Amino acid sequence: MRLRHIKGAEEMIATSDFVVQNPEEIKGTWKNMFANAAPLHIEIGMGKGRFIMDMAEAHPDINYIGIEMYSSVLLRAVKKLEERTLENLRLILLDATYIQDIFEVGEVDRIYLNFSDPWPKDRHAKRRLESRQFLRRFSGILADNGEIEFKTDNRELFDFAMEEVSFSEFEIVSHSYDLHNDKEMVMGNIMTEYEEKFSSKGQPIYKYILRKK
Amino acid sequence: MRLRHIKGAEEMIATSDFVVQNPEEIKGTWKNMFANAAPLHIEIGMGKGRFIMDMAEAHPDINYIGIEMYSSVLLRAVKKLEERTLENLRLILLDATYIQDIFEVGEVDRIYLNFSDPWPKDRHAKRRLESRQFLRRFSGILADNGEIEFKTDNRELFDFAMEEVSFSEFEIVSHSYDLHNDKEMVMGNIMTEYEEKFSSKGQPIYKYILRKK
Repeated sequence: MRLRHIKGAEEMIATSDFVVQNPEEIKGTWKNMFANAAPLHIEIGMGKGRFIMDMAEAHPDINYIGIEMYSSVLLRAVKKLEERTLENLRLILLDATYIQDIFEVGEVDRIYLNFSDPWPKDRHAKRRLESRQFLRRFSGILADNGEIEFKTDNRELFDFAMEEVSFSEFEIVSHSYDLHNDKEMVMGNIMTEYEEKFSSKGQPIYKYILRKK
Repeated sequence: MRLRHIKGAEEMIATSDFVVQNPEEIKGTWKNMFANAAPLHIEIGMGKGRFIMDMAEAHPDINYIGIEMYSSVLLRAVKKLEERTLENLRLILLDATYIQDIFEVGEVDRIYLNFSDPWPKDRHAKRRLESRQFLRRFSGILADNGEIEFKTDNRELFDFAMEEVSFSEFEIVSHSYDLHNDKEMVMGNIMTEYEEKFSSKGQPIYKYILRKK
């Protein structure tokens, strides 16, 4: 019997085996969801999902979860994933504000933030995923020594992000103002769609790696 | 400056004055959001929003909030609301699982559930908005004597919903197996789009009203 009152995009998301439907019920037991008890890495705001799919393919020894708050965007990732079938990747429709409702402290080993929405207006600063408010939430789900990797082409957002670290429980492990010309940091770098587009135009990519103290 | 990394539908939702952007920050102070301290009624799963817009227009003395978890669906309500401008109505993009993150106990006076997704498989029972699990969440935001009004054309879902009440903190105030032929219960009834379609075909509409004990 098909679902009657949700149509199209919503039905595909609500019935896809790749989308975790009630993530808050898995809280504390994510390791059991996957075939092996590997480290858990998540991407917040994964968009169409190319980065996290490439990561999951490159690292079968790590489990991945992609999180996206817009169903219209998530749908595009679901469609792609239906074609690729990665056993170590699942997706969630969620506003990251509620991330602590779905992961216990210590349950996540690494968080990726790629080309996050800059929310350019000052009064929207706390909506930025790199704000102290979000860093506090991320600290509330990461394991000790858990890491956050953040890439952006937006210099203003990166400057803001670097400043916010001092108001958080994180320390900067490394950072670059030109990732693609930084031999050490660029090793193993997997590009997002935005990154490919912007860096091919000569636009520098900024990156930091934070570690939970 | 436009938002760079969210496009189209998402940008419209993220910038609309009718959409409350960080609802968890309003928790406990919703009455201050509106021009007057009127009762607060919410609809969960409002879809395209016709019901709640008609309600808001018919009852200017009540404040309304429409909640929808799918951005692709919410967008259609936003577009409609941009044309109607109802001062006593705001919208939120949210999975109702997290409803207690945005409303304090006692902050909501009435909850409307209209033609909710039936989730026909047994193993999905707790995803139904009328399940004991959701009734517990709703009890956690309603005022004393707060009410839930639920309408559906799905008899199986209605039977399930009636049974779940006994596992909750609610009591049944009234109910009907044929709303449109129940003179008392149908008074003041505002139809949803589904309701209009199904009832015009002679399909009975089921309804209950619950009150928090």
